[in-house]
Amino acid sequence: MTAAIDFYFDFSSPYGYFASTRIDELAQKYGRIVAWHPILLGVVFKTTGSSPLPQVPLKGDYSWRDFERTARFHNIEYKRPTHFPLPTTQAARAVLWLQNHHGDDIATAFAKSVYRALFVDDINIAEPAELVKLAEPLGIDAHAMDAGASGFQIKDQLKAEIDVAMAKGVFGSPFVIIDGEPFWGFDRFDQIEAHLKSKRPMALRAVPGMDNNTNNTSSTDNSTESSKEKKPA
Amino acid sequence: MTAAIDFYFDFSSPYGYFASTRIDELAQKYGRIVAWHPILLGVVFKTTGSSPLPQVPLKGDYSWRDFERTARFHNIEYKRPTHFPLPTTQAARAVLWLQNHHGDDIATAFAKSVYRALFVDDINIAEPAELVKLAEPLGIDAHAMDAGASGFQIKDQLKAEIDVAMAKGVFGSPFVIIDGEPFWGFDRFDQIEAHLKSKRPMALRAVPGMDNNTNNTSSTDNSTESSKEKKPA
Repeated sequence: MTAAIDFYFDFSSPYGYFASTRIDELAQKYGRIVAWHPILLGVVFKTTGSSPLPQVPLKGDYSWRDFERTARFHNIEYKRPTHFPLPTTQAARAVLWLQNHHGDDIATAFAKSVYRALFVDDINIAEPAELVKLAEPLGIDAHAMDAGASGFQIKDQLKAEIDVAMAKGVFGSPFVIIDGEPFWGFDRFDQIEAHLKSKRPMALRAVPGMDNNTNNTSSTDNSTESSKEKKPA
Repeated sequence: MTAAIDFYFDFSSPYGYFASTRIDELAQKYGRIVAWHPILLGVVFKTTGSSPLPQVPLKGDYSWRDFERTARFHNIEYKRPTHFPLPTTQAARAVLWLQNHHGDDIATAFAKSVYRALFVDDINIAEPAELVKLAEPLGIDAHAMDAGASGFQIKDQLKAEIDVAMAKGVFGSPFVIIDGEPFWGFDRFDQIEAHLKSKRPMALRAVPGMDNNTNNTSSTDNSTESSKEKKPA
């Protein structure tokens, strides 16, 4: 019941950025923690045969428009990046190095800084020097991070982490797995919340289901579990 | 302000089916009507280089799971079809023939029957005989429809309609265009509603914006317009 929520993201994914601004808060609301997993969509797309949204004919123009509209709708700061598309390998490796050497909290704070740098402050996060600048205010030995993120151990780890993610069915960003249930896209956060709500320990629920005779109206949860029981007329 | 909402769909699209159960109701709430446009994703995908979701590696398994979960979440009847994928050309042409000969209301009622037949009753809607059976209860001369939908005029019209749709930027199903604003996917219905709300004539709004000095809290609309004015801290 208290297993970590797995959150997979590529730093070049705008919807991944949107999700990164909300996932910790949402998890906390249901007594969960989040395991942040940087991935590289370029590697994943070799398996699925997909292309980055902004590069697909017709979809590209729409996507840029949808990124801005979605940010406004959810009240998330966003500025269309000029450095795009861009390689996110070094940033992803830096997050892994930080997880290994400074723990998850610092690594997550750094990941949020990187996302914000790209999608709010229009910084070229493909530049190792920019990553160093983002690390320093967090009290990180940024030059050790830079060296570590360029080493063979972390390169191999990132490859292996992406293989694990794909073996679990991950094919996009953001991608969230909770108790084995996969959710693709920032637009599944409503279903993620319903899932988390339905999995809460009984003691934490506002309206506990006391017995099978309880009528439908007693549940205010729009959860997958409760919906399953409803038969449309 | 009262222009029709353009609703593009392929009969083989589960998310298109979900949208078909909600679009008329949503439009009506904001004093709009819906223009239903059957398209063929097979033709569109030649331009975008996409494949049907269930056929993409990794995405395929996820998609089937997401169709069922999304239906439950929104309380929409849905049963995984056994005839899938299947050609939807005859069904799309029948809708156009009905629009030409019986008007939009009958054509839309038929389109809803076809979607329900595929995604609830597991009927093979690629079979012209099944389409005839669906047309008869609606008082349609089903054999005239069957002949008309197979004629050159309707074949040419469907091709031309799909060309028009793509020229307007349509690349998926469901796809909705309102006053020039494009929305792709059933999961954009929240943003569609916000858009419709923001475009209502002033007289219909619950909280009219009287002047520029009105403070932020006076608006209850989570609309694109009002969000535009908010500066995140």
